Amino acid sequence: MLSIEKYQEAFLNFLKTNNFERQPKGLYNPVNYILGLGGKRLRPVLTLMCADIFQGSYQKALKAAMAVEVFHNFTLVHDDIMDDAPLRRGKVTVHEKWDINTGILSGDAMLILAYQLFEDYDANTFKALTKLFSETALQVCEGQQYDVDFETRNDVTIAEYLTMIEYKTAVLVAAAMQMGAIIAEADIKNQQSIYQFGRNLGIAFQLQDDYLDAFGNPETFGKQVGGDIIENKKTYLYLKALEFADANEKQRLIHLFNTETTKTEEKIFAVKELFKSTGAAKATKQAVAEYTNKAFKVLEVLDISEDKKQLLKTFGSNLMRRNV
Amino acid sequence: MLSIEKYQEAFLNFLKTNNFERQPKGLYNPVNYILGLGGKRLRPVLTLMCADIFQGSYQKALKAAMAVEVFHNFTLVHDDIMDDAPLRRGKVTVHEKWDINTGILSGDAMLILAYQLFEDYDANTFKALTKLFSETALQVCEGQQYDVDFETRNDVTIAEYLTMIEYKTAVLVAAAMQMGAIIAEADIKNQQSIYQFGRNLGIAFQLQDDYLDAFGNPETFGKQVGGDIIENKKTYLYLKALEFADANEKQRLIHLFNTETTKTEEKIFAVKELFKSTGAAKATKQAVAEYTNKAFKVLEVLDISEDKKQLLKTFGSNLMRRNV
Repeated sequence: MLSIEKYQEAFLNFLKTNNFERQPKGLYNPVNYILGLGGKRLRPVLTLMCADIFQGSYQKALKAAMAVEVFHNFTLVHDDIMDDAPLRRGKVTVHEKWDINTGILSGDAMLILAYQLFEDYDANTFKALTKLFSETALQVCEGQQYDVDFETRNDVTIAEYLTMIEYKTAVLVAAAMQMGAIIAEADIKNQQSIYQFGRNLGIAFQLQDDYLDAFGNPETFGKQVGGDIIENKKTYLYLKALEFADANEKQRLIHLFNTETTKTEEKIFAVKELFKSTGAAKATKQAVAEYTNKAFKVLEVLDISEDKKQLLKTFGSNLMRRNV
Repeated sequence: MLSIEKYQEAFLNFLKTNNFERQPKGLYNPVNYILGLGGKRLRPVLTLMCADIFQGSYQKALKAAMAVEVFHNFTLVHDDIMDDAPLRRGKVTVHEKWDINTGILSGDAMLILAYQLFEDYDANTFKALTKLFSETALQVCEGQQYDVDFETRNDVTIAEYLTMIEYKTAVLVAAAMQMGAIIAEADIKNQQSIYQFGRNLGIAFQLQDDYLDAFGNPETFGKQVGGDIIENKKTYLYLKALEFADANEKQRLIHLFNTETTKTEEKIFAVKELFKSTGAAKATKQAVAEYTNKAFKVLEVLDISEDKKQLLKTFGSNLMRRNV
């Protein structure tokens, strides 16, 4: 086993020597651009780590890890078009740097390139990886659609919200881990367990993201604190606040989320106060802990050594202790 | 072997009983809408026919045929966004009926759904089909990018143009046929031959399309006759006209393609006269015949019965004799 930093390094080296220097440039330059923007490379690192955990070799998992990262970046390119986002990781987005058509077409190519990255694996492994990948990719699309649908709905339930973040975020973390297990030829029970570990951790991660968006440290949080509030996003915090609010609080919260205002700082402050007074902030922190613990609970049935379990636990704890 | 009409019928029945009635509706309704718009279903029919030709069963090829059709329709959805096209087969396009974001996301889902349709095949067949599919799909993206690039270039060669239509149109016809052969477990030599048959026929088909766009019968041609001329498209006709033109003709043609005008009928008439006087019209018809004959030449090395070769020949001849 290597350290997280070493897996990151191994992946970045692979990425550097395996970029898509092909013709036509108009199609492939945007692919290399978005893949070069950086990021934590969390998902591919998980694939590499899990290959090692199940007695495989992380080297053999590099192409699958790359597939996961290429797919993740494909979703960023298309999502940024849909969200009309000018910036990604502090740099201009693909459709801003080129144009929307380039973003659509280069994104499409990335989805296909991701599939091609499984082709070096033997037929059975190839099929197992590709099936998991397709199912996951489709869920990510479904999650994105639910997210869009929720914008115009006022009756979104907590259960629906959890399904949405599971599909949009958690299943790819889960699949990234299972892919490492598939390549290491772990048995199906271990594969399913590591998937569930990743899935629960992914949900915890997204709930944490909701929490930090409002209560994170502006000095260290990568995005604008209060961004979700400005956009009237129906996050876990908001849905819980509505659930717990008394008639007066509920009315104020709905009013704040349905009134155009230029006084964004005041709005953010007022909403955050309601998140606290209703108990939503606390409930969100509890939900993060709950899903993290669910993930850790899965470790008990995993057929791996104690020190490897400890490694996964440390990884999960660090992820949840982050304030960025 | 069945007749083309019977294969069409078999495919349409399969399509009807295998549509994507899933949640969320916002994602899958556009998928079912575009798949229900009709069309000749040329590509899936070729997959079914080739499965039978190589002693397989067309029933076993239905899912692969569906994958080809779903992929083809995915390209239509994304291309229509890029071309800002309001209509497709006489009906409103997906991004017009819903919106651009829906077109992007439902298109993405279709590409994934196409891959999933191979999952019923055993691991080796699955890998062969998926590899061919990915390679083809990526070429289609590259062909689309070349087409975009050509719009702003004035030095496009005939060779580059032929590569562009090969990638954008012909390889999918070729792959559709090879997929039938793969499912029928034809040997690799026969697989490659049927691919080359389809590839050459596909190029002939697209050159025919260029020709008919200018010289087709307005009563029977599905699209607006002269559409390419109005859009100043650098088709085979145009590139050949430039090649053959004397200084005077060349100047007039370039002028016509670089001047905004409201007198479209006059422009179409003048350009068509130049296509004829330079010999470009005749050269295009010759190129159609040449690529059709190249396709027929491949039949000679195919290891199938004479009556099956005759069937492929009749199919090709009918396709090239069309005026729609």
